[in-house]
Amino acid sequence: MDSFAAWMGGVQARVESALERQLPSANIAPMRLHAAMRYAVLGGGKRVRPLLVFAAGESGAPGAPIDATRLDIAACALECIHAYSLVHDDMPCMDDDVLRRGKPTVHVEYDEATALLVGDSLQSLAFRLLADHRLAADATIQLEMVNILAHASGSRGMAGGQAIDLDSVGKPLSLPELEMMHVHKTGALIRAAVALGARCAGARDKEQLQHLEHYAKCVGLAFQVVDDILDCEAPTATLGKTAGKDAAQGKPTYVSVVGLARAKEMAHELQADAVRALGKLPGNTSRLRELAEFVVLRRF
Amino acid sequence: MDSFAAWMGGVQARVESALERQLPSANIAPMRLHAAMRYAVLGGGKRVRPLLVFAAGESGAPGAPIDATRLDIAACALECIHAYSLVHDDMPCMDDDVLRRGKPTVHVEYDEATALLVGDSLQSLAFRLLADHRLAADATIQLEMVNILAHASGSRGMAGGQAIDLDSVGKPLSLPELEMMHVHKTGALIRAAVALGARCAGARDKEQLQHLEHYAKCVGLAFQVVDDILDCEAPTATLGKTAGKDAAQGKPTYVSVVGLARAKEMAHELQADAVRALGKLPGNTSRLRELAEFVVLRRF
Repeated sequence: MDSFAAWMGGVQARVESALERQLPSANIAPMRLHAAMRYAVLGGGKRVRPLLVFAAGESGAPGAPIDATRLDIAACALECIHAYSLVHDDMPCMDDDVLRRGKPTVHVEYDEATALLVGDSLQSLAFRLLADHRLAADATIQLEMVNILAHASGSRGMAGGQAIDLDSVGKPLSLPELEMMHVHKTGALIRAAVALGARCAGARDKEQLQHLEHYAKCVGLAFQVVDDILDCEAPTATLGKTAGKDAAQGKPTYVSVVGLARAKEMAHELQADAVRALGKLPGNTSRLRELAEFVVLRRF
Repeated sequence: MDSFAAWMGGVQARVESALERQLPSANIAPMRLHAAMRYAVLGGGKRVRPLLVFAAGESGAPGAPIDATRLDIAACALECIHAYSLVHDDMPCMDDDVLRRGKPTVHVEYDEATALLVGDSLQSLAFRLLADHRLAADATIQLEMVNILAHASGSRGMAGGQAIDLDSVGKPLSLPELEMMHVHKTGALIRAAVALGARCAGARDKEQLQHLEHYAKCVGLAFQVVDDILDCEAPTATLGKTAGKDAAQGKPTYVSVVGLARAKEMAHELQADAVRALGKLPGNTSRLRELAEFVVLRRF
């Protein structure tokens, strides 16, 4: 088995290449919109959600051969949703940020109207990808995948988490309230990544899918806790986005709510909880375990 | 058979009631977002796309009983996409409009960030509706419906039409260029309405679906031509949105490109072309014929 770093590099490279193919060419009209969509998605990011798709795919159906082209498509759909949410979040009426992945944000590089349409179009593209390719032996499972992604993206998932985030600016949140926000804002899409990867690989057992769901919930929260720690500790250059912004905007973070030391403990506890859930699965869960560790130990 | 007016009122009422049920309750968190989603969708609009869904549904499978609850869901999905596009289009970075269906636009009544999230969440909800309900005997057909709606909404459909629209402000467009813009901007969703309605009703014959597609293309263009005529002729109070805005913003319209008299002729020619396509269909196309007439003769 490849080292984790080699596996991660391999998945990142193949997903980048799949995104290159699945995004509309910048030579097709409307060209400026298509160029901006590619700018928003390509050449950046840790691709955490695709990594979760592939890791869950490897754990999904013990013994069965893995169809990586299916995982590519699910990973692309998740990255389209993730990228759209970043483009819209960075807009002046939301976080008003000018830097993302070390580059000017879309509304700065292009304009606000284009940024709005880029986000809208990337969301449509995500669902198109899930419907236009064969991702499961049974079309009913594939409809379930569309349903999972739509629920994770919408008002009861990611977009709803953003709304809770907006309402929370300048308010003291309790830890459960902060958790509720992140379970939606970043957690929903991370859970969807694991759920889609497992289903691409043919996982059907309800109990197994529930253990995976619990793993994903813990990793999603850990991811956010670590994001808050890095936002407070890492310099902007390392982060690729404006550091210390949440605190400056009066947004509640794990660090502001429980303090830096406790936030670090929590990240490790969530990692341990995630790994415990993997112990109940029959398949090969080593990549999922390594990913949980990576999410907590990462430095960017 | 009911009169067209009675049929139209009946469809509008049942779709309003279906939307009431399918939109998240304003009592469920995040409450402000859900209230704003309901504000954006409920209690207004001609419901042209739902009318096309139902009319196409009635023409779809001659002799077969029509499952109106399927048509309800497809109609709701289309209205969610349509309403999201209006909310985003009205935002300051796009058309910057304050009035829609006689009410303050969402970003005026709520705020810009909420308007952004309302649009995003309504798009997700549209795909959720198509995946979460049984709309066709065969799940493969239902995936095709997801694909049709995603394509119609995205960068090669509605959102792409918006991008072409943005690029065209202040530029003299030729008639083919103007048509290309509208085939995407409003036409794509109107074609999707007809395509989804027919598929809900079990239509499978390729040639028939192509005739329906041609009908929908003509009706979509006629709809836009008439919109441009009304924008130049009708007062704001009748229109429910700011009249004369396109001309004031230097946007090319059918009236500005071909003149008022020729635009009126074109609307009638497109109606005749649409009705000719219906002549090649075996099912009951009377509602589709009446709708084509309604689109051209409407006064609001």
